[in-house]
Amino acid sequence: MGFRATARPGGRSARVQRSVHRAVRELEAEVGREALTVPLVAARAGVTPSTVYRRWGDLRELLSDVAIERLRPDAPPADHGGLRADLEAWVAQFVEEMSSAAGRMYIRDALLGDPEQGNAVRCCDYAAEQLEAVCVRAAGRGEGVPGVESLLDVLVAPVMYRILFRPSELSGAYTDGLVAAALGAAAPPPPPGR
Amino acid sequence: MGFRATARPGGRSARVQRSVHRAVRELEAEVGREALTVPLVAARAGVTPSTVYRRWGDLRELLSDVAIERLRPDAPPADHGGLRADLEAWVAQFVEEMSSAAGRMYIRDALLGDPEQGNAVRCCDYAAEQLEAVCVRAAGRGEGVPGVESLLDVLVAPVMYRILFRPSELSGAYTDGLVAAALGAAAPPPPPGR
Repeated sequence: MGFRATARPGGRSARVQRSVHRAVRELEAEVGREALTVPLVAARAGVTPSTVYRRWGDLRELLSDVAIERLRPDAPPADHGGLRADLEAWVAQFVEEMSSAAGRMYIRDALLGDPEQGNAVRCCDYAAEQLEAVCVRAAGRGEGVPGVESLLDVLVAPVMYRILFRPSELSGAYTDGLVAAALGAAAPPPPPGR
Repeated sequence: MGFRATARPGGRSARVQRSVHRAVRELEAEVGREALTVPLVAARAGVTPSTVYRRWGDLRELLSDVAIERLRPDAPPADHGGLRADLEAWVAQFVEEMSSAAGRMYIRDALLGDPEQGNAVRCCDYAAEQLEAVCVRAAGRGEGVPGVESLLDVLVAPVMYRILFRPSELSGAYTDGLVAAALGAAAPPPPPGR
């Protein structure tokens, strides 16, 4: 698991991870995923293959770490002034990213290259952290907020389940409906006509 | 995809699938998964390796087909006399099977060995068919029933999501709560004291 080795962001281990991850991204774009090999990645990253094998085990685990880096949110959830609007916008963006061809590939990479599930758990933690931030902001406005675990069940789980197991049109109407279900328990229904 | 090839259950193609699947199960038990190879499986099944490669592509796809066979429900959902009791019992059994070490391995096999997602979709279809049977039976009793798609979102998705992405204690209290949420929208609340 590469991640446990990156506790010291400034250290050599972090520099090795950055250069190896960059090499994977560059080579994927240049020669395509099928042509990727550990020696090829190591040469581009300027490290020995044994460094890669020692740290990541094999190419699949390395791809899993690269995928999880790419799935990491790059910004806090946007503020639309209210819990419902924030959740609707967050889920819509989550669906857009995760259901894209790249998103689906990263989800599969994160799951498959990672027998200990560490990267899959990290993938879920990203969503939980974003939802927590939305709820903390809403609570600060005096809004009633559902728990993050319930938001994972009602908002995130159906989206990820359908992406992996049930090809579905994840429309805005569908995701807004998930948000309405999530808030039904914790917040008053939206005003008529909304 | 082996499954499309089994339209004629009595045909040669079905016999080949049965013998190859049996060979995988036997050899997995005898020599362990790590030692499985296509030539080994083919020899045990009495077919040529090229038959296996032609039909399944590679060992991973074959393991994915074997996994999906093992995930296929072997009985209709038990009848406990009411929708809530039937759903609570079905989800509890679903959790028991899917969260077991074997269940987790079959889910991963079904997902991983199957770039076209055909086996993952089949895995979801099994759950949908069982939930449909529970709802048809309940409607026959005159009970109000939720839609199967909503049951997949509220009951199945959280369980599968947590198994894959968020290690959780999937207790009976948790799964009964999922059923309560599923019925809250579609059915009257349970009578007091139930």
